[in-house]
Amino acid sequence: MTSATPPTRAQAPAPDKAELARRIAQARGDKPADLVLRGGTVFDLVTGSMIEGDVAICGDTIVGIGDAYEGQSISDVSGLTLVPGFIDTHLHVESSLVTPFEFDRCVTPRGVTTAICDPHEIANVIGAEGIAYFQAASEHVLMDLRVQLSACVPSCHMETSGATLLAEDLEPLMGHPSGIGLAEFMNYPGVVHRDDACLDKLALFSGGHIDGHCPLLGGRDLNAYVSAGITTEHEATSAEEALEKLRKGMRVLIREGSVSKDLHALQPVLTDVTAPYMCLCTDDRNPLDIAEHGHLDFMIRTLIALGSSPLAVYRAASLSAAEAFGLKDRGLLAPGKRADIVALDSLETCNAQGVWCAGTPVSEAAFAARGSVPPVGRRSVKANPVSADDFRCADTAEETHVIGIREGKILTDHLRETIAIKHGDKAPDVSRDLVRIAVIERHGKNGNIATGFVKGFGLQAGAIASTVCHDHHNIVAVGADYADMAVAANRLGALEGGFVVVKGEEVLAELALPVAGLMSLEPFETVRAALEELRAAARTLGVTLEEPFLQLAFLALPVIPSLKITDHGMVDVDAFELL
Amino acid sequence: MTSATPPTRAQAPAPDKAELARRIAQARGDKPADLVLRGGTVFDLVTGSMIEGDVAICGDTIVGIGDAYEGQSISDVSGLTLVPGFIDTHLHVESSLVTPFEFDRCVTPRGVTTAICDPHEIANVIGAEGIAYFQAASEHVLMDLRVQLSACVPSCHMETSGATLLAEDLEPLMGHPSGIGLAEFMNYPGVVHRDDACLDKLALFSGGHIDGHCPLLGGRDLNAYVSAGITTEHEATSAEEALEKLRKGMRVLIREGSVSKDLHALQPVLTDVTAPYMCLCTDDRNPLDIAEHGHLDFMIRTLIALGSSPLAVYRAASLSAAEAFGLKDRGLLAPGKRADIVALDSLETCNAQGVWCAGTPVSEAAFAARGSVPPVGRRSVKANPVSADDFRCADTAEETHVIGIREGKILTDHLRETIAIKHGDKAPDVSRDLVRIAVIERHGKNGNIATGFVKGFGLQAGAIASTVCHDHHNIVAVGADYADMAVAANRLGALEGGFVVVKGEEVLAELALPVAGLMSLEPFETVRAALEELRAAARTLGVTLEEPFLQLAFLALPVIPSLKITDHGMVDVDAFELL
Repeated sequence: MTSATPPTRAQAPAPDKAELARRIAQARGDKPADLVLRGGTVFDLVTGSMIEGDVAICGDTIVGIGDAYEGQSISDVSGLTLVPGFIDTHLHVESSLVTPFEFDRCVTPRGVTTAICDPHEIANVIGAEGIAYFQAASEHVLMDLRVQLSACVPSCHMETSGATLLAEDLEPLMGHPSGIGLAEFMNYPGVVHRDDACLDKLALFSGGHIDGHCPLLGGRDLNAYVSAGITTEHEATSAEEALEKLRKGMRVLIREGSVSKDLHALQPVLTDVTAPYMCLCTDDRNPLDIAEHGHLDFMIRTLIALGSSPLAVYRAASLSAAEAFGLKDRGLLAPGKRADIVALDSLETCNAQGVWCAGTPVSEAAFAARGSVPPVGRRSVKANPVSADDFRCADTAEETHVIGIREGKILTDHLRETIAIKHGDKAPDVSRDLVRIAVIERHGKNGNIATGFVKGFGLQAGAIASTVCHDHHNIVAVGADYADMAVAANRLGALEGGFVVVKGEEVLAELALPVAGLMSLEPFETVRAALEELRAAARTLGVTLEEPFLQLAFLALPVIPSLKITDHGMVDVDAFELL
Repeated sequence: MTSATPPTRAQAPAPDKAELARRIAQARGDKPADLVLRGGTVFDLVTGSMIEGDVAICGDTIVGIGDAYEGQSISDVSGLTLVPGFIDTHLHVESSLVTPFEFDRCVTPRGVTTAICDPHEIANVIGAEGIAYFQAASEHVLMDLRVQLSACVPSCHMETSGATLLAEDLEPLMGHPSGIGLAEFMNYPGVVHRDDACLDKLALFSGGHIDGHCPLLGGRDLNAYVSAGITTEHEATSAEEALEKLRKGMRVLIREGSVSKDLHALQPVLTDVTAPYMCLCTDDRNPLDIAEHGHLDFMIRTLIALGSSPLAVYRAASLSAAEAFGLKDRGLLAPGKRADIVALDSLETCNAQGVWCAGTPVSEAAFAARGSVPPVGRRSVKANPVSADDFRCADTAEETHVIGIREGKILTDHLRETIAIKHGDKAPDVSRDLVRIAVIERHGKNGNIATGFVKGFGLQAGAIASTVCHDHHNIVAVGADYADMAVAANRLGALEGGFVVVKGEEVLAELALPVAGLMSLEPFETVRAALEELRAAARTLGVTLEEPFLQLAFLALPVIPSLKITDHGMVDVDAFELL
């Protein structure tokens, strides 16, 4: 981000008469093109053929392929394969732990030229102001950042969020050029049971695009959900679930986040037959995974390695995504389409050697030239200090509901374990991997503290805590030691939110996330390094999960089966009620 | 048509809150569905699988598949295969020679539930009033008749039409619920050469849907045409041409009309890989062909018989068509989609045993219950009487430009024949199949009469004449005898337009088309019978063409290569100039 503010890069309007004439003239070769990419081969996603010849670009738009062109500027792409820019069809930028500007810097060079985000993390903390922040940022970033309007803030009634968005709160946010429609409608029980506030939002966006979220829904309940006009969905975790959703007319988004990893399960479904109706998304992916493995580029090369055809995979990554979300101006390298182009070493390795966003070459200079938007959501952690005793809880019976973690899934198991009540408390039992989990309301609303048990961390000592806690983003802490949990939770207030690892009442590692308690103000490289320290520190406590903080963050999301915890208490998601 | 006027059947608006709640309740089975189709099998066009179970319909919308449902009304479709209603992606209803109401009666029972028409035939005769007539009719017919706004009235500057439509004339017609965008942009030379009036129309619809028409265009000229924002096209006549258009991002519409028959040439291109980007259309198809062979049903069964997979063919017939034209509410039998349903005996034979349009069963009773719109364009033939001498022409040299007919194509060859000049005239020479062709301006504008030669009719005597004469719809006559040509042309004035066959100055057969000289006021069955008599009469003159009147009609269309004739004279279409 620079302090100067260049003109915004808002979505281009439809071309006027003069611009049409300019495009036609350059396409015919009557005038030299603004930019020519020379020496590459275009992978045509309609017929699957490889097209030799120049790619001519007029302003932000491709005007010629498969022919020789003169250009005002020539870029040499000899030996490279050109494909359309990738489209991440569903993600929460906040999960990258950096601002939209750093997210742009992080993933655009990997070929992601469009990202369709749902800013519901920040909206749960500071409401409409958070969505407006993303809309403003979309006017400056190099990629085309599309900002859906968050459907479920809070995700449901069983949690305390920092803000509530009703249909009437969303209406003033409609009409921004970054908009596509309503973001993932997570309260699927509210839809199928015809909750009044849910129907208001569905009616407000009726006839437009409404994105879905309905894990494990099937049969007549799925028919009901789809009948509400919801056409895209990213929560399928098995081939069978994906196939039912496809058959019922949903576009299925294959997701590979840092926690939710569905790519292997859904890859067999992605064929030349289904690819026109499937897309790719990351949902929640942190900068460590992006650095170590990649982003959509990682998904593309992995899907091909697993046996999907390059045609099917690249369609899902661009053309089919554009179709699914009504972005008719992109998804193909063809005349009249946005010049969102990735030059690859090969289709199989998917390493971007050059990226163009609407005709602008992606470079550090281009990032430096962007405008900026001041960060919002500072000082958002408003919880009172807690003490060790706040985590004590005896429950009413020794049979105890325990959240069972499935590594790499945001689905959890609803376990029942016997935990002895001693001295008015059920103590953590690290020998059985049963540790305390607590959610502490931090929006200054009611000071709720809820406690429960979780199995699967491998934690042997100490505590970890976070303000990234979907979707209400209260403080969530797990610990083998209550005093350490208190130190960790209290440290988050001083940091304005973030991640903390504590042992022996000492902070071993931490990362401040002062933008709504969700995003750092640092470059993504700094955040990546901090995450490595945090992971290492967590491992010294015995944690066996590869991604403990994001896994932790989803234990508080009561719209994903089966057992979760919010500041209201433990939630039986299958019954959709508090225990 | 009935004289009473029931409520209109305009396109349903997006569902409101109450309607959403009704759909969701019926989809869940909380309330019985309005209508259940029981016993059939749904052909799923996304995965290609066959789905057992009921189809539940709420109002005009499917709400459930693949499950058991109770219904207020049950229709037995035992043993039948259910597919989405077919979409004719480009046609001129006028070419069916009947009104939109009779067209509806003729093709909807064959499974065509959406037809995207371009009313440019009637618009060339009576202007915007003709388009408004189709828009009004669309509010009453059972099918969803979509009315594109005609881009090229006249098709170009080398003809006299009854009306001229500029961008400013189209603007007041925008916004009707039947609208999709701008109809086929036939003046492709005007686009690539950046004609000012063409650019005005392109700019008016910029960012919306613009349909194409660019026969034989390729290379940089095609890049230029596509760069203008034109995304669908139906003039490809070879696999090679279709593939280039597909690669350049155009959706290719396979056409099988009464004259232009491209199905066999393009069938090899229609595969599971390309089908998502291909559609079907009839362009110009008369009721005789519809009765003898079928409509889109004929195309479907023929494409399957030729080797395209049923999945590819049914996608092109519905799902891909819906995608190509932005009709997101249809193309699949899935919850939330319009209940446009065809019940078939089998996928291969494609015989419709039952059809539902937006949930309404198609029947003679349903047709009888439609509202009506008074016909327009009466008394539109305003030519002065002609005499035999009007067809005499000596030209300037004995080398003569001759239109060479390709049967089953609207493309023609530009032939050169030596014809002796005798007594100040070049006489027809039936021994070499060289007969006179003339176009007589009939809109009361200038009284132009142009003459030339044509080869390919097989005509040995007499004359045939017509007011169906694309796109200006002047009078076109061919004859071996000038007196017969005069009788034929003059008879058209008395009929208010139509078709006439004359021999020995006697009318052998005729059909009146009093709606703008293009459409009959009779039922389609009556028109079909008249066409049989006309064909038989033409054969007694020696005519060897299967469909002489439609073939004749396209000899006057100067935006289809290579040699044509208008009231301005012979047109070299390749050079795009009058000879």
